[in-house]
Amino acid sequence: VIAGIDHVGIVVEEIDAALRRYQQTFGMSLRHREVLAEHGVEAAMLAGGDGQIELLAPLSPDSATGRFLQARGPGLHHVAYRVEDIDTALEELRAAEVELIDAEPRSGMLARRIAFVHPSSTGGVLTELVEVGES
Amino acid sequence: VIAGIDHVGIVVEEIDAALRRYQQTFGMSLRHREVLAEHGVEAAMLAGGDGQIELLAPLSPDSATGRFLQARGPGLHHVAYRVEDIDTALEELRAAEVELIDAEPRSGMLARRIAFVHPSSTGGVLTELVEVGES
Repeated sequence: VIAGIDHVGIVVEEIDAALRRYQQTFGMSLRHREVLAEHGVEAAMLAGGDGQIELLAPLSPDSATGRFLQARGPGLHHVAYRVEDIDTALEELRAAEVELIDAEPRSGMLARRIAFVHPSSTGGVLTELVEVGES
Repeated sequence: VIAGIDHVGIVVEEIDAALRRYQQTFGMSLRHREVLAEHGVEAAMLAGGDGQIELLAPLSPDSATGRFLQARGPGLHHVAYRVEDIDTALEELRAAEVELIDAEPRSGMLARRIAFVHPSSTGGVLTELVEVGES
């Protein structure tokens, strides 16, 4: 069901400083930046070779990433896997009795169809599926 | 300097249960399994499409991953980037005043040359470089 790793999500305190750090230190390049008001975050996708990281800065302390930042500090937040067909993927996970955060796909960055799987079914890892279509 | 994401490292309590979970739930396949006594862990590399995750189970509570498990519970531990030449990469990071955990490359799983970068230079993310040679 998994086609590969789409990106790794990293919660940061301040997005501009984090962007500069990853651009300067690791030579990554900014691919896209977007305020996702309904998720309470500003997000920036960076490319490093054929890999991607997503920097997430909370818009407010009471958003999900704001609470994460207060509880655990900045750092790794989630891993996102590419799937060809997210409806089929969610159906298969439901059949395997995996606990889903999103029963149905919703809209993520760049209006891609995404869904989150609960960490209780993945050994403590907040896990995102991203539909990328057939490759 | 970064060619892509090599793998995402995940700390687990018990490697067999975690392996089964990722194999059954996400259809990943076991690529390699190894006890790395000097690092105090048993590690398993799984492939999901063209992505990889590394499951890490501490061999003892006082190992680095054992302490991580006690402090934070199971979950995301590090992200590893592919580099073509790790000596050049470390030289560039030193020149950028990035704090390194490993000043010189050491031997990781499958005897690959690896080095860890300190989270203080990466926004709280334990970061590994893995030399994969020219692609």
